[in-house]
Amino acid sequence: MSSYNVAPLAKLAEQFERLPGIGTKTAQRLAYHVLKMPREKALEFSQAILSAHDNIHYCNECCNLTDKDQCSVCANPKRDHSVICVVEDPRDVIAIERTQEYHGVYHVLHGAMSPLNGIGPEQLTIKELLARLQNDTVTEVIMATNPTIEGETTSMYISKLLKPLGIKVTRLAYGIPVGGDLEYADEVTLLRALEGRREM
Amino acid sequence: MSSYNVAPLAKLAEQFERLPGIGTKTAQRLAYHVLKMPREKALEFSQAILSAHDNIHYCNECCNLTDKDQCSVCANPKRDHSVICVVEDPRDVIAIERTQEYHGVYHVLHGAMSPLNGIGPEQLTIKELLARLQNDTVTEVIMATNPTIEGETTSMYISKLLKPLGIKVTRLAYGIPVGGDLEYADEVTLLRALEGRREM
Repeated sequence: MSSYNVAPLAKLAEQFERLPGIGTKTAQRLAYHVLKMPREKALEFSQAILSAHDNIHYCNECCNLTDKDQCSVCANPKRDHSVICVVEDPRDVIAIERTQEYHGVYHVLHGAMSPLNGIGPEQLTIKELLARLQNDTVTEVIMATNPTIEGETTSMYISKLLKPLGIKVTRLAYGIPVGGDLEYADEVTLLRALEGRREM
Repeated sequence: MSSYNVAPLAKLAEQFERLPGIGTKTAQRLAYHVLKMPREKALEFSQAILSAHDNIHYCNECCNLTDKDQCSVCANPKRDHSVICVVEDPRDVIAIERTQEYHGVYHVLHGAMSPLNGIGPEQLTIKELLARLQNDTVTEVIMATNPTIEGETTSMYISKLLKPLGIKVTRLAYGIPVGGDLEYADEVTLLRALEGRREM
């Protein structure tokens, strides 16, 4: 950084630049914006970062993020605890909750297997998932990992582990997205949509 | 925010969402990223925000941002203090410094006149600029506000104030950007480029 840059400002811009998808120019713009905020707003921002860090941990049942012992889904007695939907990321839980049609519980893996990046089964919360299946109350596990090579591999790996336990393992249907345009669907998606066709 | 969102996380995402150009999805992604950082990195980020806020103020000469009494340009005895380049924003100083060919000093207005947004001359550092011109050492003021209506208006306003003082007022040349494509230049820029044509 050149001498005409002010150290604390350059440092703040650097912090923003470390965030994903934020380039040098945007980082600079954000740093200036923070500088222009009233001090109490900046304080709020500063505290929100540490507060999120210090108060959020894994739910002791499903490994989703929570600031309590259990997340709000696991703690809800109205949810069907015999069905577990396995997802890669806490954001996937939010996406599925948005459908308002899923009444089971979740299990968050916090990633997907990716040997190239050194992520194996032991880096995910698969051990915790197996522990949840010990008490015979679970009847179905729905694999809802991402439709990527890593997600598929993870699903396959887990389903192989669960088969011997006699638990029904299902996975989300592949197909053309609703509201999408057939013309723009890639051939793999179309193939899966054909394979999964249903009688009307 | 729905109940499945964790409060401290939602709060952090909200903070990011307040930044310019950051939408809901990006804000969520950034909040998760911060959560995954090691705690000392999050602490660094959190402190950088407040540190920038608490240590940065206007240079007592040119109103640029600095963490000292004077910014590094004004404090540099090798700079030509008889030429002042007037810009809207501290980032404009950085842009001009990047040319490495300007050896005068700056004056940062911190905005441009915009009656529609309630920004008049008294909201800018025009008073401070006039004060700098009292001691007769300044020979030229270069207007380098943005080529927008607001920037133009501001330049016109300031040049009218300076004319009676007998100070030479110039402004940056308009024209086609170097490396640009004539085909894509707008007609106003082309007209200005024609008007400002020089003998080769």
